[in-house]
Amino acid sequence: MGDTSSVRTETRMPDLNPTTMICMRAEIVSVGTELLLGQIVDTNAPMMGQMLAELGVQHTHRQTVGDNLERLVDALRLALSRSDMVITIGGLGPTMDDITRDGVAGALGVELVTNDRLQIHLQEIFASRRLSWVESQNRQAMVPTCGEPIDNPHGTAPGLVCRKDGKLVFCLPGPKNEFVPMARGPVREEILRLAGTRVFHSRVVRVCGIGEAKVEDLLKDMMSSENPTVAPYAKLAEVHLRVTSSAESIHAAEAKIAPVVSEIQNRLGWHAYGFDEDSLEKVVLDRMRGKYSLAVAESCSGGGLGARITGVPGSSDVFAGGWITYSNEFKTQELGVDRAVLETHGAVSEECARAMAERARSQSGADFALSITGIAGPGGGSEDKPVGLVYIGLAGPTGTTVEEHRFRGGRDAVQGRSVQNALVLLLRTLVKGDQ
Amino acid sequence: MGDTSSVRTETRMPDLNPTTMICMRAEIVSVGTELLLGQIVDTNAPMMGQMLAELGVQHTHRQTVGDNLERLVDALRLALSRSDMVITIGGLGPTMDDITRDGVAGALGVELVTNDRLQIHLQEIFASRRLSWVESQNRQAMVPTCGEPIDNPHGTAPGLVCRKDGKLVFCLPGPKNEFVPMARGPVREEILRLAGTRVFHSRVVRVCGIGEAKVEDLLKDMMSSENPTVAPYAKLAEVHLRVTSSAESIHAAEAKIAPVVSEIQNRLGWHAYGFDEDSLEKVVLDRMRGKYSLAVAESCSGGGLGARITGVPGSSDVFAGGWITYSNEFKTQELGVDRAVLETHGAVSEECARAMAERARSQSGADFALSITGIAGPGGGSEDKPVGLVYIGLAGPTGTTVEEHRFRGGRDAVQGRSVQNALVLLLRTLVKGDQ
Repeated sequence: MGDTSSVRTETRMPDLNPTTMICMRAEIVSVGTELLLGQIVDTNAPMMGQMLAELGVQHTHRQTVGDNLERLVDALRLALSRSDMVITIGGLGPTMDDITRDGVAGALGVELVTNDRLQIHLQEIFASRRLSWVESQNRQAMVPTCGEPIDNPHGTAPGLVCRKDGKLVFCLPGPKNEFVPMARGPVREEILRLAGTRVFHSRVVRVCGIGEAKVEDLLKDMMSSENPTVAPYAKLAEVHLRVTSSAESIHAAEAKIAPVVSEIQNRLGWHAYGFDEDSLEKVVLDRMRGKYSLAVAESCSGGGLGARITGVPGSSDVFAGGWITYSNEFKTQELGVDRAVLETHGAVSEECARAMAERARSQSGADFALSITGIAGPGGGSEDKPVGLVYIGLAGPTGTTVEEHRFRGGRDAVQGRSVQNALVLLLRTLVKGDQ
Repeated sequence: MGDTSSVRTETRMPDLNPTTMICMRAEIVSVGTELLLGQIVDTNAPMMGQMLAELGVQHTHRQTVGDNLERLVDALRLALSRSDMVITIGGLGPTMDDITRDGVAGALGVELVTNDRLQIHLQEIFASRRLSWVESQNRQAMVPTCGEPIDNPHGTAPGLVCRKDGKLVFCLPGPKNEFVPMARGPVREEILRLAGTRVFHSRVVRVCGIGEAKVEDLLKDMMSSENPTVAPYAKLAEVHLRVTSSAESIHAAEAKIAPVVSEIQNRLGWHAYGFDEDSLEKVVLDRMRGKYSLAVAESCSGGGLGARITGVPGSSDVFAGGWITYSNEFKTQELGVDRAVLETHGAVSEECARAMAERARSQSGADFALSITGIAGPGGGSEDKPVGLVYIGLAGPTGTTVEEHRFRGGRDAVQGRSVQNALVLLLRTLVKGDQ
């Protein structure tokens, strides 16, 4: 996860006796006035809830409180009175209204003390970024006497793990890019160690190029099974099937899940493109690696396809680059699309998508080139060419394919669906080529 | 609000004395095991939170409980002990695990009775949809003795409003298409009637190019003010300052907020780049519109800068297009970066960022061109050029600037911060050019 050499805080968790926690009950306390006011939708707590369920930890209450110390202490005391483990999310920043450290210390009845190691670590971060040290930053080096910091390689707010009177309190930062790695990494590991033997385990089968209703139709009988259960979740132009089993170990749960996953693959074929965290772009790149290179030419998606592809570590093995041909001049002068194509058919046309893909392929020398041109809206549509009309082209060694789509939704949705469907077209073509 | 002609239940609310409720405190209780398990993200509660804030109702706690009667009754009793108004969301369906009716009756210590009018209405719905009546459906006709139903023109689950001992309980259904019209319609109207004239209103000042701790340092005295309050929220490489005032009208609140916003602008200068929903890319494009055009050349951000810019409707007025120069060959052959630059200094260098920006500007003919080249990680770093090292270039009419950054975090964060800082560099340059 990037450069960890600068991280000096310890990853080791304080020693707990696993037997004291056999049947754990956990409670999440989300902290932040912005959550109460509805300025932010809390997606961290549901993610933590999923994780607790997978780990077989009972999770019966969730509280959300604002940036008010007295109310946070009350909420934490209530949580500690009925749960073995309390997980706070948010309120670990450096400012006056980041009160979680104080709240946890108050609820546990202990003091906050400066952790020297943490203070030095924070000062090093500031120095390496060439920022001047701000006094208020010292707040982030404070730790309850019964607690220890948890590394945060993605931000300045360290997490906390505290233990007192047989209770365990985890404090995680609110920003998603800091919360997720900490939750999935050290916190998950520690809970797994304590949670005992009954686990819920699940795998996600990721499905593209086919609608939710059709998926449900093909898997109807499997959807009513009990252990494992199969549940569909609709995502932007894809469907995720969560297969969940409860068993005495992850190994035993996996043994129950495996045949169900195989059956799903049998029925859905290449549409079942990946598992768990595999993104469509990662699966496509893995299939191309060592065999093919890829270029893109994007108009209405404006770089979104390139951004998704290059979001995958190691994408440079396959991805050469591309053109963001937003204006017509860019299409002709930089990419070399024939001006006559634009004059005769317009920029949003099958012919333009074809020319963009073919020019991108020949000019870059890549084996495959994807093109996207369309009307993302909200303005710019006509009766003939409405908002949502998008052409996706793919030029490859055996020729060029162009698909016409009519996407619904706002600008975001049209751009997102364009990118998703370009990747689906590429995957389908690669699968057919391999047969 | 759809077709209301089929609605036979009464919309009139039970009579309450507004004076008893002048300074109301509300609490939301979301009901559903699927919320705890993280299978559903709760977006209803944030929407209700926004509405309460707009209506000037204090809202200090939120609870989430599963489909367990005992725990729901406890949660409701706790809520009633500290709030004037409790709003439950979910658990009003016809099945056995829809327990909100029972929970509310239990917490208020009253009986549930069949509401004949409601039962007839439900039977009519079933008849009109040609569905056979299911006995369990009778549960939806049950109402606490101190309550009355609220119309649901979008589903079979009626809402409830109950009053006892000066406390008010609203029960709303969980499905979004039923919840939203009921919340925004009859429930909002009733709260507005009771809440009197006091409203909370806020504006967000968006700040870039300066850290949260520094912002707080510059505004320390303002952060402790009471009305309006000023609260900072850290976002990815920007800070949002929410200025909130409570007053007898939105107009009066705005009058209190305006001088505080002006003072923030005075102290932070161009860093306070926008308000409320203005994105940085939108503000930059608005500043350029009619005056300047823009091109980009992206290496490690892979199209993310183009995607952010073209996410703004109407960006084509300013944005010409760009190159995703992911491979070195793409940088030299397509963009025309001198091969000697890459050989001497490498692709991640000040010189390469400069050449990319200048080539993008000259080749596209745009007034400004931004370039990004760096190491997004997780692999590919060295001691000399670590992961997170990013050069951002800007070529414009008066010359070229290159900034060196050392970003922390994972690949996502490095790419996101690169794009954000490129936009900040462009904004700073435009502001200086206008002075």
